[in-house]
Amino acid sequence: MPNPEILFQTTPEQYKHWKLQLDGPVATLSMDVQEDETLAEGYKLKLNSYDLGVDIELADAVQRIRFEHPEVRAVVITSLKPRIFCAGANIYMLGTSSHAFKVNFCKFTNETRCAIEDDSLHSGRRYIAALNGTASGGGYELAIACDEIYLVDDGNSAVSLPEVPLLGVLPGTGGLTRLVDKRKVRRDRADVFSTLAEGLKGKRAKEWGLIDDYFARSKFQESVDARVKKIVDESTSTESGIKLTPIEFESTADSRNYKYVKLKLNREQRYADLTVYAPEGPQPTTGKEIQELGAAYWPLQAYRELDDALLHLRVNEPLIGLVCLRTQGDAQIILDIDQTLTTNHDYWLVREIVLHMARVLRRLDLTAKSFFAIVEPGSCFAGNLLELLLASDRSYMLKDSDARVAVSDLNAGVLPMSNGLTRLQSRFLAEPQKLDEIAGDKKTFDTDEAEDLGLVTFAPDDLDWEDEIRLAIEERTSLSPDALTGMEASLRFAGPETMDTKIYGRLTAWQNWIFQRPNAVGEKGALTNYGKPTQAEFDFKRT
Amino acid sequence: MPNPEILFQTTPEQYKHWKLQLDGPVATLSMDVQEDETLAEGYKLKLNSYDLGVDIELADAVQRIRFEHPEVRAVVITSLKPRIFCAGANIYMLGTSSHAFKVNFCKFTNETRCAIEDDSLHSGRRYIAALNGTASGGGYELAIACDEIYLVDDGNSAVSLPEVPLLGVLPGTGGLTRLVDKRKVRRDRADVFSTLAEGLKGKRAKEWGLIDDYFARSKFQESVDARVKKIVDESTSTESGIKLTPIEFESTADSRNYKYVKLKLNREQRYADLTVYAPEGPQPTTGKEIQELGAAYWPLQAYRELDDALLHLRVNEPLIGLVCLRTQGDAQIILDIDQTLTTNHDYWLVREIVLHMARVLRRLDLTAKSFFAIVEPGSCFAGNLLELLLASDRSYMLKDSDARVAVSDLNAGVLPMSNGLTRLQSRFLAEPQKLDEIAGDKKTFDTDEAEDLGLVTFAPDDLDWEDEIRLAIEERTSLSPDALTGMEASLRFAGPETMDTKIYGRLTAWQNWIFQRPNAVGEKGALTNYGKPTQAEFDFKRT
Repeated sequence: MPNPEILFQTTPEQYKHWKLQLDGPVATLSMDVQEDETLAEGYKLKLNSYDLGVDIELADAVQRIRFEHPEVRAVVITSLKPRIFCAGANIYMLGTSSHAFKVNFCKFTNETRCAIEDDSLHSGRRYIAALNGTASGGGYELAIACDEIYLVDDGNSAVSLPEVPLLGVLPGTGGLTRLVDKRKVRRDRADVFSTLAEGLKGKRAKEWGLIDDYFARSKFQESVDARVKKIVDESTSTESGIKLTPIEFESTADSRNYKYVKLKLNREQRYADLTVYAPEGPQPTTGKEIQELGAAYWPLQAYRELDDALLHLRVNEPLIGLVCLRTQGDAQIILDIDQTLTTNHDYWLVREIVLHMARVLRRLDLTAKSFFAIVEPGSCFAGNLLELLLASDRSYMLKDSDARVAVSDLNAGVLPMSNGLTRLQSRFLAEPQKLDEIAGDKKTFDTDEAEDLGLVTFAPDDLDWEDEIRLAIEERTSLSPDALTGMEASLRFAGPETMDTKIYGRLTAWQNWIFQRPNAVGEKGALTNYGKPTQAEFDFKRT
Repeated sequence: MPNPEILFQTTPEQYKHWKLQLDGPVATLSMDVQEDETLAEGYKLKLNSYDLGVDIELADAVQRIRFEHPEVRAVVITSLKPRIFCAGANIYMLGTSSHAFKVNFCKFTNETRCAIEDDSLHSGRRYIAALNGTASGGGYELAIACDEIYLVDDGNSAVSLPEVPLLGVLPGTGGLTRLVDKRKVRRDRADVFSTLAEGLKGKRAKEWGLIDDYFARSKFQESVDARVKKIVDESTSTESGIKLTPIEFESTADSRNYKYVKLKLNREQRYADLTVYAPEGPQPTTGKEIQELGAAYWPLQAYRELDDALLHLRVNEPLIGLVCLRTQGDAQIILDIDQTLTTNHDYWLVREIVLHMARVLRRLDLTAKSFFAIVEPGSCFAGNLLELLLASDRSYMLKDSDARVAVSDLNAGVLPMSNGLTRLQSRFLAEPQKLDEIAGDKKTFDTDEAEDLGLVTFAPDDLDWEDEIRLAIEERTSLSPDALTGMEASLRFAGPETMDTKIYGRLTAWQNWIFQRPNAVGEKGALTNYGKPTQAEFDFKRT
């Protein structure tokens, strides 16, 4: 049974599983999962367990707080269910999902948690996990994504990562890396904690650094409130937000067209053309004008559309193995926009817009599909759109033509990869002096210059162009998709590692592995047999 | 058909696949793989392809050069086969091996390559890959492990990583990480190179940074010789080596006993006791005395035995999931030895011994089995042996007893993990001030002190001791071995990442994943069908 297409857009009015309450500088996000409101059939979302649909709402809420409610300084994440904060990813959902879906689900939930951390780090909002009941598995991992964790002390509520003992899989959405790298829990304690199905309660959980504090049930709300009050007393904001209007698109069987992003699916050949269009006409140049334009401002609208297209490709189009990234329009307009974003970078909305662009580009880096950038006359791989080229696995640029690529200040730092470097830095690890050359007075480069500078991979001339691109596409889509996924994940992230790259690179890989082991998903595997009268049986050979 | 037990010991006289030639400061290691001398049945080692047996000889040769021939300053790795340097890991061997064996094979070959890099970094020997023929796959990866790569320019010889296009698996033994991190090859070029079955020849290979230079066949030998001469002219050594005598052991069906290391296999319960014994009697205190004692000196002999026991457990005992690490003997003797090693650290042999200890301990960190340290009266978890405890996933220390643990200078830096930190630093990421407390005047700690300092996980008293250990063992060995492997690999390496941790953590995980995908090892997988008239057929869904 093919699942229906998954949509990544929602609004607070449509939320089924979360309540977003706003009270001046404090936002409260309360989880109240409706067990029958699932994305697919075959499971119920009991005990505030979640599926992708629940996490799509959470991602939307975090995004909306940033754009629509910049006055918010503290976000409290809590539960409306008695005695349970969140039971983590739904096990029956995992048990009935395809391998690819499980992996994409984990990736998306990680991106949501990284988005929380991004908001905390760059926009200074403080996230408080108010665990008014047990937080287990992904529930506890959601708590770790927050800045502070408070647990109710009622003799019952605990934090736990029960996946290893109960399900034979890794705590799935980044927990182990965040556990030892972010919270720096001592490794032997992390070992004990991660093998203890029932988890740990208040006192010991605090002693081991798993939570920041615990309070008796009668004092819980007031203690959390007091902490939140302290945060908002110390940090105020008088900005007022913009409305994130719905992203509109038209779709056919083999296309999805947004205003600035067009996706064409060449299903037979298993590749897609994804084209980003520059805007036309005059663009705002001041913070005030940008605020007035709101979600229709190109850098926000185009990147929201791009984000949606990437998520759509990941989850709804698994057979598309290669995406040809194209751009079209006036490069100068893009460069002018970058100039505006740079000049107004201290304006809250501009900062949020640029941070959003950075997140979308990281989503691209982390997408398990090949990307080729195709640079032709009429394209506008300039400034922020040059990042599409730099994020690609390869690029092709037509020789002896009007095609140009161009750099702007936005290529120099504000759109970092998960490894903390810019894409230019990652590209030129061996030749850092190239960065100075590229950042020199000359900002726009023709094909020969781009090739000399190392900005593009291949520069075929007009005679070879079509054949070369066609052959490259054919060759790429003929290769093992699994080998490509592993290869690209390795080659895209040279250089330093950060918590984020560890989470995605290491843990996702391990989880990918474990998610297809018979000990997890085989007939006798622990994931398969969870909640059934039958018991898991393991092949105890260590690998 | 169970494979015969694999032995990890050999000597140059026994080598089947390599010739080790010594000429003063120059060692030449020539690969000449005998195609019928395989470790298992079902494949032939054509074209200098290798199986684990070939790599065991290489590892032995590198180790012997360090200890037996400290006068060597340059090691040339080349081939005795016409037109082929090395074709990499044997594909039919991979195709007929179990998943666990493949993973262990990749890990061991990586450790061998890291040992080459360790020698280069710490002992200053320069490794030259003299590619007098094509180096593909693991053959090229062996070249990247060297400091310099020279390729013959004969219109035919190339370097290549053909695994993705030909086999549907990752270049297996670290190639991609070394490619972009060590050689810093630009990511789009690395992408092209890694998907190009035929690889690249001299000029372009040099341009892309894949090799350091290329020479016509007629000039190849003299050009390499000239480079080697330059190296040895700049660096001389007049030390003379010691003999690495064979490691002896007696074994029964459930034990393997070396002189200082005893392994007891509790097969029914799927765990092993591995006990390291302190030496008895007076120990040498000067470099000269150590040199006279040679391979019989405890820090060298005990760690060589430990290394052999770990490799044996990994490859020959897959059903053993847990190793209880124990020590026995006089802790003061261990501390005195550490003092001697510290005092004489400038003496070449002492430096080599300590570097060897560090490699063995890293082998332990990277072993996919659970480790519990058991600290009882009569044990000697002191100084270098305390590292066994710190490397363990957990530790148990008997309360109210004579049991003690102790630190020495060797815990403070010279035995780093793959992440570049000491095991104490990794343990106390959240509380670095503990490092000062532990390194204070008091060096020996009883159970209460060790628990307070956070050196041990649990400290049961006499009443609970046996039950608690027994239950912990039973519980651990009941868990999914795959989930444990992923969990331990994540928890052991918090903190910074290095090229080594990237290789092991990221790539091994990806390779683990790809090695069990149907697209590689299924009936229609590329690895299964390599060299057969049938063609691979892929499920093109991207994960």
